[in-house]
Amino acid sequence: MSDHAGRLDAMRIAAPLVQNITNYVAMNVMANVMLAAGASPAMVHAREEVAEFATIASALTINIGTLTPAWVDGMVEAAKAASEAGTPWVLDPVAVGATSYRYKTAQRLLAFNPTVTRGNASEIIVLSGAAKTGKGVGATDDVDRALLAARSIAQRTGGIVAVTGAEDFVTDGTREAWVANGHPIMPAVTALGCALNGIVAAFLATGDDAFEATITALAYYGLAGEQAGETAQGPGSFAVAFLDALAGMDADRLQAGAKIRRV
Amino acid sequence: MSDHAGRLDAMRIAAPLVQNITNYVAMNVMANVMLAAGASPAMVHAREEVAEFATIASALTINIGTLTPAWVDGMVEAAKAASEAGTPWVLDPVAVGATSYRYKTAQRLLAFNPTVTRGNASEIIVLSGAAKTGKGVGATDDVDRALLAARSIAQRTGGIVAVTGAEDFVTDGTREAWVANGHPIMPAVTALGCALNGIVAAFLATGDDAFEATITALAYYGLAGEQAGETAQGPGSFAVAFLDALAGMDADRLQAGAKIRRV
Amino acid sequence: MSDHAGRLDAMRIAAPLVQNITNYVAMNVMANVMLAAGASPAMVHAREEVAEFATIASALTINIGTLTPAWVDGMVEAAKAASEAGTPWVLDPVAVGATSYRYKTAQRLLAFNPTVTRGNASEIIVLSGAAKTGKGVGATDDVDRALLAARSIAQRTGGIVAVTGAEDFVTDGTREAWVANGHPIMPAVTALGCALNGIVAAFLATGDDAFEATITALAYYGLAGEQAGETAQGPGSFAVAFLDALAGMDADRLQAGAKIRRV
Repeated sequence: MSDHAGRLDAMRIAAPLVQNITNYVAMNVMANVMLAAGASPAMVHAREEVAEFATIASALTINIGTLTPAWVDGMVEAAKAASEAGTPWVLDPVAVGATSYRYKTAQRLLAFNPTVTRGNASEIIVLSGAAKTGKGVGATDDVDRALLAARSIAQRTGGIVAVTGAEDFVTDGTREAWVANGHPIMPAVTALGCALNGIVAAFLATGDDAFEATITALAYYGLAGEQAGETAQGPGSFAVAFLDALAGMDADRLQAGAKIRRV
Repeated sequence: MSDHAGRLDAMRIAAPLVQNITNYVAMNVMANVMLAAGASPAMVHAREEVAEFATIASALTINIGTLTPAWVDGMVEAAKAASEAGTPWVLDPVAVGATSYRYKTAQRLLAFNPTVTRGNASEIIVLSGAAKTGKGVGATDDVDRALLAARSIAQRTGGIVAVTGAEDFVTDGTREAWVANGHPIMPAVTALGCALNGIVAAFLATGDDAFEATITALAYYGLAGEQAGETAQGPGSFAVAFLDALAGMDADRLQAGAKIRRV
Repeated sequence: MSDHAGRLDAMRIAAPLVQNITNYVAMNVMANVMLAAGASPAMVHAREEVAEFATIASALTINIGTLTPAWVDGMVEAAKAASEAGTPWVLDPVAVGATSYRYKTAQRLLAFNPTVTRGNASEIIVLSGAAKTGKGVGATDDVDRALLAARSIAQRTGGIVAVTGAEDFVTDGTREAWVANGHPIMPAVTALGCALNGIVAAFLATGDDAFEATITALAYYGLAGEQAGETAQGPGSFAVAFLDALAGMDADRLQAGAKIRRV
């Protein structure tokens, strides 16, 4: 059995500094989510400083949500720096199927072999090159349909791929697992998917096995969502209760509540 | 009598993909407001992808809140693409009276004939060329003072103009109406005006009569504000309750609660 | 005894227009914090309009949180315009120790002699040139360790320096005071430090003695935090209650609750 409780405690003690290059919609939510969890977020994206900042960060996340050429340069610099330094990093190919600009940028970043690639089913399918699908920012495909795509990306990058949805699928090309924690209101709060990247990165930063760290991160996040859903009256109060639940999560409760199915 | 209930149901069933080029302050709120209402928001502003994205979006909003030259280029590209494709779009000339840079940009965008132009009284007066006024981002004029300016913009663009304030005025140059829903705390929560553009656009996207769609959008938004005001202790709890109210709004309650006065 | 009550009333009556150049993470929170307090925030950062906007604003804040070359140009233009016009302005050197790009930018801005320089202990120490420390965005040093650095910056700029932390230290090079209001959850909500700049600027805008205005701003902010902490279940509900407390703060309660120690 995986030691989710020990991993949460270790992350909170380390309070890892995680550098995030993410979209404008997500920045505030992501920072609050990470602070609530006990990590130390920093939003640094300019080409002029990403590489230098990367040397002091314990992990990196890159999300292509709101792109411009200057940001793409910063993303490539940061991915390169993380890759060379062996710093774990997470790629989120938001809406990769929406425009060719996004597709090309995501492929450039993928070449730096992210430790974890996380997206919804439509994004993972498009990113794998298997099909053009899911043009918007929401998922239009079920997680089930993205398994082959996820495995193919895992093989290409040598990293983990997490397909998130009603139930999350995680593969490193060899090991595979499903994480069933979560709540149906979560997609109605913007940027909770983007913010999850920061939680995954914070767990990766503890230096633990990346596959296990990813599973614990997803279970912790989803379980906090379940707790928030118990009192929420709608997406507004859900978002508030979710931050409280992330901060208040007891390690033992996580250990008991994680719904992992290894396959 | 207008079928507000049917229009809300239709919008939620369609869950239209709306492309938004808005300011940094508003992006997160706008996305949450639109998700709560049942629409599908996407924040896409880069010149490199706006036109391509416009081909898959059902509506567009442009807000000049935080301008830079690259963003202005993206806005013009997007307005042009929407105009050529016949995609409905909403222009919000935030603080158009504050600097000449804003004024020029707003006039460039207005030339692409927005389906709906929405602003506070000061912004609509300045935009019409009638006077220099309202240099800040808040309204310093009453809605009453902006009627002639609104009609003149409606004639010039062939579109709708909505002047929002304590009571909202809507004109398409021929038909006119007042919408009295709303709550006095709303101006104390940042970007609720900006986020309203997305709700107007979502209703426009259903292909309904644009004048009627705009009225329903304003009534729905204001009524959700009234509901939020019943429990709010201040602007923080108001913002939370407002999202819950948008999501939980019953179509029949909207039909009963809309306060429309046609003139 | 300082007239905190009168100062809060005066600020709310003036509802000063404050121009803010701040980071993407903070923009929304800052606007909401300022609106809740009764000020009128405007986020204007483009080189094309900062100087013109500066002529209508009653105060300015600059925060180096998310830098790019174009933004640095806008910051320098704005600081220059404020300095020449005698408009009070606040500098926040976020994470100045993290990269040389930040350090150089902060030094360029400091040369325009901010009315108030506000940062955590690590930032103030680095900014003074005394040491390289505190590479992340959070403080790694106690306020106590930054007193000499704060005094040295106050002498160099002829302005106020506020070092915020568990207890806040304020100096103008001659007068000194400690402000003990606040709540331990505050650092777990992102951008509350950044947003504080706007409150300080709003009080400065009333034209009062800048040292006294800064102290009142810090006491008001911290006391609202104390009130929020009475009901909060975690950082999510704290952020909501904090906005409500800023808006609902009674002037007499501020007068009674301010914890100022002059030294």
